[in-house]
Amino acid sequence: MGSYAAPLRDMRFVLFELLDVERRYAELPGMAIDRETLDQLLETAGKFASEVLFPLNQVGDREGCKLKDGAVTTPTGFRDAFRQFRDGGWAGLDADAEDGGQGLPHSIGIVVEDMVASANQAFSMYPGLTHGVYSCIRSYGTEQQKRTYLPKLANCEWTGTMCLTEAHCGTDLGLLRTRAVPQAGGSYLVTGEKIFISSGEHDLAENIVHLVLARLPDAPKGTKGISLFIVPKFLPDAAGGVGARNGVVCSSLEHKMGIKGNSTAVLTFDDARGFLLGEAHKGLAAMFLMMNGARLTTGMQGLRLADVAYQNALAYAKERPQGRSLTGPKAPDQPADPIIVHPDVRRMLLTQKAYTEGARAFSYWLATLLDREHHHPDAAARKEAADLVALLTPVVKAFVSDNGFACTALAQQVLGGHGYINEWGMEQYVRDARIAQIYEGTNGIQALDLLGRKVLADGGAKLRIFGKMVQAFLEEARATEGMAPFLDALGGCLAELTSLTKELGVKAMSNPDEVGAAATDYLRVVGHCALGYWWARAAHVALQKKGSGERFYEAKLATARFFFARLLPEAAYHARAARAGAEVLMALPADGF
Amino acid sequence: MGSYAAPLRDMRFVLFELLDVERRYAELPGMAIDRETLDQLLETAGKFASEVLFPLNQVGDREGCKLKDGAVTTPTGFRDAFRQFRDGGWAGLDADAEDGGQGLPHSIGIVVEDMVASANQAFSMYPGLTHGVYSCIRSYGTEQQKRTYLPKLANCEWTGTMCLTEAHCGTDLGLLRTRAVPQAGGSYLVTGEKIFISSGEHDLAENIVHLVLARLPDAPKGTKGISLFIVPKFLPDAAGGVGARNGVVCSSLEHKMGIKGNSTAVLTFDDARGFLLGEAHKGLAAMFLMMNGARLTTGMQGLRLADVAYQNALAYAKERPQGRSLTGPKAPDQPADPIIVHPDVRRMLLTQKAYTEGARAFSYWLATLLDREHHHPDAAARKEAADLVALLTPVVKAFVSDNGFACTALAQQVLGGHGYINEWGMEQYVRDARIAQIYEGTNGIQALDLLGRKVLADGGAKLRIFGKMVQAFLEEARATEGMAPFLDALGGCLAELTSLTKELGVKAMSNPDEVGAAATDYLRVVGHCALGYWWARAAHVALQKKGSGERFYEAKLATARFFFARLLPEAAYHARAARAGAEVLMALPADGF
Repeated sequence: MGSYAAPLRDMRFVLFELLDVERRYAELPGMAIDRETLDQLLETAGKFASEVLFPLNQVGDREGCKLKDGAVTTPTGFRDAFRQFRDGGWAGLDADAEDGGQGLPHSIGIVVEDMVASANQAFSMYPGLTHGVYSCIRSYGTEQQKRTYLPKLANCEWTGTMCLTEAHCGTDLGLLRTRAVPQAGGSYLVTGEKIFISSGEHDLAENIVHLVLARLPDAPKGTKGISLFIVPKFLPDAAGGVGARNGVVCSSLEHKMGIKGNSTAVLTFDDARGFLLGEAHKGLAAMFLMMNGARLTTGMQGLRLADVAYQNALAYAKERPQGRSLTGPKAPDQPADPIIVHPDVRRMLLTQKAYTEGARAFSYWLATLLDREHHHPDAAARKEAADLVALLTPVVKAFVSDNGFACTALAQQVLGGHGYINEWGMEQYVRDARIAQIYEGTNGIQALDLLGRKVLADGGAKLRIFGKMVQAFLEEARATEGMAPFLDALGGCLAELTSLTKELGVKAMSNPDEVGAAATDYLRVVGHCALGYWWARAAHVALQKKGSGERFYEAKLATARFFFARLLPEAAYHARAARAGAEVLMALPADGF
Repeated sequence: MGSYAAPLRDMRFVLFELLDVERRYAELPGMAIDRETLDQLLETAGKFASEVLFPLNQVGDREGCKLKDGAVTTPTGFRDAFRQFRDGGWAGLDADAEDGGQGLPHSIGIVVEDMVASANQAFSMYPGLTHGVYSCIRSYGTEQQKRTYLPKLANCEWTGTMCLTEAHCGTDLGLLRTRAVPQAGGSYLVTGEKIFISSGEHDLAENIVHLVLARLPDAPKGTKGISLFIVPKFLPDAAGGVGARNGVVCSSLEHKMGIKGNSTAVLTFDDARGFLLGEAHKGLAAMFLMMNGARLTTGMQGLRLADVAYQNALAYAKERPQGRSLTGPKAPDQPADPIIVHPDVRRMLLTQKAYTEGARAFSYWLATLLDREHHHPDAAARKEAADLVALLTPVVKAFVSDNGFACTALAQQVLGGHGYINEWGMEQYVRDARIAQIYEGTNGIQALDLLGRKVLADGGAKLRIFGKMVQAFLEEARATEGMAPFLDALGGCLAELTSLTKELGVKAMSNPDEVGAAATDYLRVVGHCALGYWWARAAHVALQKKGSGERFYEAKLATARFFFARLLPEAAYHARAARAGAEVLMALPADGF
C-alpha cells in the first residue's frame, strides 16, 4: 500500500534554482546539458520508479531472497524490473560513452538513483554497487581489465560487489585473513570467507564481478598489506562473454531487519581465480575511492526513504479524521478534523520535510562537487571541490542517514497503530532506513573521520573553505529583505562551530581520546551548519520569487522558518555535549560497567 | 542468541537504597514485606525469566502467531511457558488473596513484570493485559461479576483484553460504532469490529475476557455515549466454568513490525453476549483507569527492552576486538583492542546505562506511589500520591518509551552489521521497542495530556508538588560533599521548567494551539528533570556509600556524571523548541505542504 511520486518540483528547485546546474555542467568539458533534456529525464525516471519499482517494494520485503543449491532467487518481479531498468538505459546514465553509457554527469545519475531508491531501496542496491565497481576498475584497472569489464558493468549486463568484511573484522580491515596466492600467468588464487556482501549472489544478471580485499603471501601486517582483486563469478571467455564457473559460492544468505529484497550473502572463495586491481598492498586506497562515492549515496538513503515515508505520512494526515482542532472544528461538516490540523502532527511532518528538503540541497550540491573534482579544467577548482567533498562526505553519510532513520520513525508515528503493521508499508521504511547508519563505515567511524582526519589533521584548512563560503553568503544575502533572521541564526551556528573546533584542536593535542569523545556530537554541529546554509539559501531564493504567486515558495519559506526555529537549536546542545570531554566517558574501567 | 540476566543489583539499589520500600510498604495496611522475602522473590523471578522466557523470545519473533479456522496458535513453547508462569504463581503476585492471589503490592508485580518483559515482551503482554482487566472489574464490577471473573483472571486461568480501537478510530474514541443492544435479563448483544487487539485470541488459556467499548441505542454522540462491556469468549456456565461459545471470532491477525509472539487480532463481534461493566455511558472513564496503569508499564517497556539490549551490547563491546585505542594499545598481546576502549562506543553504552537505570528509579518510584494512592490510610498522602501519578504517568509513557527505542537502536549500533541481522537478536529489540511509543495513546497524546490536562488545567498545582519535592532534596543534599555539581545542574533544569511552564500558561490562554505546539518538547524537559532528580538521588546514595568498596557505587557515580554532562543538557534545547510557538507550525495551509 501507499505510493511514491518523485518530488520533481523540489528536485528542479534544487538543481536549477539553488545550484544552477546548467552553468555548473557547462564548465565541465563535454558535460553541458540543457534544462529541457534534464527535465524530461527526471520525469521519465520518476514515472519508472513509481510505476515499475515501487509496486515491488513490499513484495521484496515480504518474499526476500531465497538460496537453493548455491543459486539465489530474487523476489517476484525483480528480474523483469531489472531488465526494464537496463533496457531503459538507466544503468549507464553516467558511464562513459565508450563503454556504452550516456556520459552524463555523475550527479545526475545520483538524482535518478534517488527516485529508484525511494521507490525500492533493496532493488537500487543491485545497480548501485555495480556503479561503484565500474568506477573502481575505471580508475585502477589495466587497459585489458577495462576492456573486459567496463562495458559489461556500465549497463548492468554484469553486476558488481564489494567484498570487504569477514566475520571477525568489519571496521578494522587490518585483521582480514582472505589470502591470494600468485599463479603462473599473473593471476591469483583467492581463498577465504566474506560476509555481509550486498547483491552477493542473485539471478538478475549473467555474471557478478566481485572486488575482493585479500592478502598476498608476502604482505605486511595490518592495513598496509591488503590488495584488491577482481574475482568474477564466471571467468570471462576469450570473446568477452561468460566462461568457466569460478571458485566462489554463496554459502548462505543473511536474514536481516530490512532491505530484504537485496541478497546479503556469505561468499566462500575457494581457490577462486582473481586478478590484481591496482598495485599490490595498496588495495585499501583503491577500495576507499569506491567507498567514498558509496558513502555519499549511503547517507542519501536516509533522505530517499524519509522522502517516500513523508509523502505517505502527509497523505494520511490530510485524510485521516480524528479529533478536533484545539482552536475549533476545521471540518465542521465531518465527524472529525483531518489530523493535519494538530500542531504536534505538523511538528512531525515539518521535521521530515525540513530534514528531507535540506538534505536534498546539501547532498545534490556535494554530488555536483564530485563532478567538479573529477572534470573541472582548472586545478584549483578541482582541489577546492575535492577538499569540500572530503570534508563533507562523512557528514552526509552520518547526519543524513541518522535524520533519515528518525524521519521514517516520525512518519510511522503519524499513522499511529497503522504505522506499526506491515500492510501500510511505513514500518518497512524504518527497517530499511536503519542500515544506512551502519554499513559503509558506521556513523561513529564517519564522525572520527570528520573530526580527526578531515578537520584536525590539516589544522582546519578544509573547514575554512566551507566557513568562507558560508561567510560570503552571509554578507551577500544581507541586502535581501527578510533574510536577517535566517542569517543571524546561521552566523551564530558557524561561530559556534568555529570556536568549538579550535577548543577541540587544543584538547586533542594533549589527549587523542578527546577526538573520539567529541566526534559524534561534533558531526551533528557541522551537519546543522551545512543544512542551515542550504536552508538559508533556499529562503533567499524563495523570498526573491515570492511575487511569482507559486505556492511552492510559500511552503519553502515556512519550512525554512520551521528549520531555524525548531531544528537548528539542537546544534547548541551537541556543541555542549562535544565540550564535555573524554574524562566523563573514560573514567569507568571496562569491567566496572 | 544473546542472553538476559535480571539486573538484580540495580533493582535492589533502587528498591532498598533509593526508595526504601520496606518502610513504604509498612505504611500500607497488610502490605508489609521484609527484604529477605523480596530478595528471594526477585532472584527466583529473574531465574525464570532468563531460563524459561528468554530462550523463547527469538522463537516468538520468528514463528509469530498463526490463525487457522478462527483459532490462534502461539509460537512453540509459549503454551508450556505460560503454564509454568501460572503454576509458579507469577500471575497472581499482586492480586487479592481472596481471589487466589498473593496480595503483594502492585509495584512488586511491576518489578517482576520487568524481568518477564525484558526476557520476552511479546509473552509478557498475555498476563500484562489480564492484570489490567482484573483491576478494572475489581473497581467497577458487580459482586457477581467479581465472583465470576476475578479468581479466573487473578491466576491467568482466563486471560483478558482491552477492545477499544476500530478501523476508523483509535485516538478519537468518540467516533466508535460498535453497538450494544439491551436484552431481556439484563445482558446485551454486542456487534462491531475491533482492531489491534493484543492477545485477542490464542491457545494459552481456556477463556478470554474481552472488555469492549460500545454504544447503547440511546447513547449521546461522542465520548459521553460510550459504555464498557464484559464479553467473554466462552460464556461462564452456572458452575463458573467455561460454557457456550460466544459470538466473537478472530477474523484476522495483523502482521507487525515486532512483538510478533503476541497475537494482535481483528475481532468481529456478531450479537455477542455482553454484560455492562460500571455505569452506562461512562465506559471511557472506567477504561481509562485500566489504561493509566497500562500507560505506566507501557512506558516501562522502553526500559525493559533497553535493559536487555544494553546487556548484550555491553558483552559484545567487551569481547569484540577491532582497532586500537587512540591512546595506545590496551590489549597489546591481542591483534586488536576490545571496542569498549573507544570513547564513542562508551558514549553509546553510557547513554543506554544512564537512561535505563534512571528510568528504573523514576518508574519504580511512580509504581510505589500507585500503591500509596490506593492503599495509604491517610487521605492527604493518597491525594498527593494520586497527583504525582497523574502528572508523571504520561512522562514515563512517552519519555521512557522514546528513550527505550533510541537506546535499543544504540545497542544495535554497537554491534555494527551484526546488529542488523536477525541472528544476534539486537534488531528484534528495536522492532519490539517501537510499539510502546504508539499504543496506549501515542506519545504525542501523552504530551498533550501532560501539558494541557495535568499541568495547565490546575494552574500548575500538581507540578508544584513535584517542584517542592525536588527543591527539598536540593536543600537537604547540599550538605553532602561532592553533590554540588549534580544539584546545580538539577536546580537549573527545575528553574528552566518552572519559567517555561509559566510562559506557556500565558500563551495558551490566547491560543490553545500553543499547547499542542509545545507539548512534545515540554514533556522532554519534564522527563529530563525527573531523571535528573533520580540521578542526583542515586549519586547522593553512592557518594555516601563509596567507602564500602563495592564497585557498584563507583559505576553509579560515573554514570550519574555522564548523565549530567551529556544527556541533561538536551533539556535546554527542548525548552527552546517549546518556546518557538505555534505560528511556525500553523502558518502553512494543509494543502500547501
